[in-house]
Amino acid sequence: MDLNNIRIVLIETSHPGNIGAAARAMMTMGLSDLYLVKPKKFPSEKAVAMSSGATGILKQAHVVDSVVDAIADCQVVIGTSARSQRYIRWPIMSARECGEYVSEQASEEGGNNKVAILFGRERTGLTNEELEYCHSLVNIPVNPNFSSLNVAAAVQVISYEIAMGADLYSVQLENDDEKPVRRTDELVTADDMEGFYQHLQRMLIKVDYLDPEKPRLLMRRLRKLFGRMHLVRSELNILRGICSACEGSKFKPRSERE
Amino acid sequence: MDLNNIRIVLIETSHPGNIGAAARAMMTMGLSDLYLVKPKKFPSEKAVAMSSGATGILKQAHVVDSVVDAIADCQVVIGTSARSQRYIRWPIMSARECGEYVSEQASEEGGNNKVAILFGRERTGLTNEELEYCHSLVNIPVNPNFSSLNVAAAVQVISYEIAMGADLYSVQLENDDEKPVRRTDELVTADDMEGFYQHLQRMLIKVDYLDPEKPRLLMRRLRKLFGRMHLVRSELNILRGICSACEGSKFKPRSERE
Repeated sequence: MDLNNIRIVLIETSHPGNIGAAARAMMTMGLSDLYLVKPKKFPSEKAVAMSSGATGILKQAHVVDSVVDAIADCQVVIGTSARSQRYIRWPIMSARECGEYVSEQASEEGGNNKVAILFGRERTGLTNEELEYCHSLVNIPVNPNFSSLNVAAAVQVISYEIAMGADLYSVQLENDDEKPVRRTDELVTADDMEGFYQHLQRMLIKVDYLDPEKPRLLMRRLRKLFGRMHLVRSELNILRGICSACEGSKFKPRSERE
Repeated sequence: MDLNNIRIVLIETSHPGNIGAAARAMMTMGLSDLYLVKPKKFPSEKAVAMSSGATGILKQAHVVDSVVDAIADCQVVIGTSARSQRYIRWPIMSARECGEYVSEQASEEGGNNKVAILFGRERTGLTNEELEYCHSLVNIPVNPNFSSLNVAAAVQVISYEIAMGADLYSVQLENDDEKPVRRTDELVTADDMEGFYQHLQRMLIKVDYLDPEKPRLLMRRLRKLFGRMHLVRSELNILRGICSACEGSKFKPRSERE
């Protein structure tokens, strides 16, 4: 998917803070093409402050006089609809469906189309005339008793669903800047765990918690419990040290032996 | 899913506007349980303005002094992680996986668990100590070149995914007359874990493994280790029984007391 094919269009936004917050939301998902149709106040310091560094988007934003100007070069136009509004003539997608649809339309295989997504006024949304330009509508499923989604929050959810639809970003996993793993942080082996369970069992017998004549399921339950912890070596050393302290002996970690 | 089982915890939020915007985001998805840990300024007119009518949530919000107080009665604690932070020992979910997981955990069939989702400070996120209370982390996949998601925007996406995970505002799949499944083994609360850590510490001092004069990082390491196990009650009872046996006393599980 070509992210440059996706345009966010904010129509007659009253609060410049919302423009800044929308720019920030776009940028977190990799979008950058912003059109503003008759914003009440723009440029604005408030917008810059709320953009939290996404100022490049604000600088490049196009301020235009009408929706027609904002969507002139777009093949696909999608309107965001509030729940209270009912439009019979337009197909309505959920935000999730929209994310998939847009990422497909904007891709090479999908026709490399330019897609505009229209966000209406804070209070009144899109006018009937503006809706006429839309090929379809998108709706974010919300609480019917409080459907008042902030416009920047709506931009966030839609942008997020577009990124998800295109599988753009993965979850940031640990270790992605590759620090060398310390030796003590290595996961222990099954063998190490066996040694620990034997030690734990000896200790539990010694402190009279486990009756070797009637062991019941205790060790099995403890194996289940500690088994799912996925211990690293330094942690195993602590647990063995505790066992030793409890039985009154001293456990030496492998590195200190012989 | 019981929406009352889901708690949003905002930690040391600097801008009251973010608290209001987060409340609004929650309400659009039907959430209402908000905890504020040491907010810089609250109550605040700015929060009320940004909540855009979600004032009920702000009025009922609990202001507390520590994360421990915010999660005391919760069985499941999830931390939101920013990209810059590296956590080796926690399982990480995407926002979408989190939505499914939370809606399951908070449902009757999933154990009717209370779930807390922690959102850290605007600039610095969660501290290591706060992370130790988390059973898992959630990450919203974002643009690696601009990962600065506003805290209220993050609340919006996570709340949205929870509502989507439970299919709350689209097709209702739930069958109302299905019998609730009773879980024999409930997950323990953060409060229960606190009690265990206190007990473990007493025992470790008694068996001379922990020097109260030089405690070093031992208890923190143990919290990290046991914290990620996600214990059920019967397992916690075993561990407390072992602590008691090691210190030479006897621990009675809750059900056998008085």
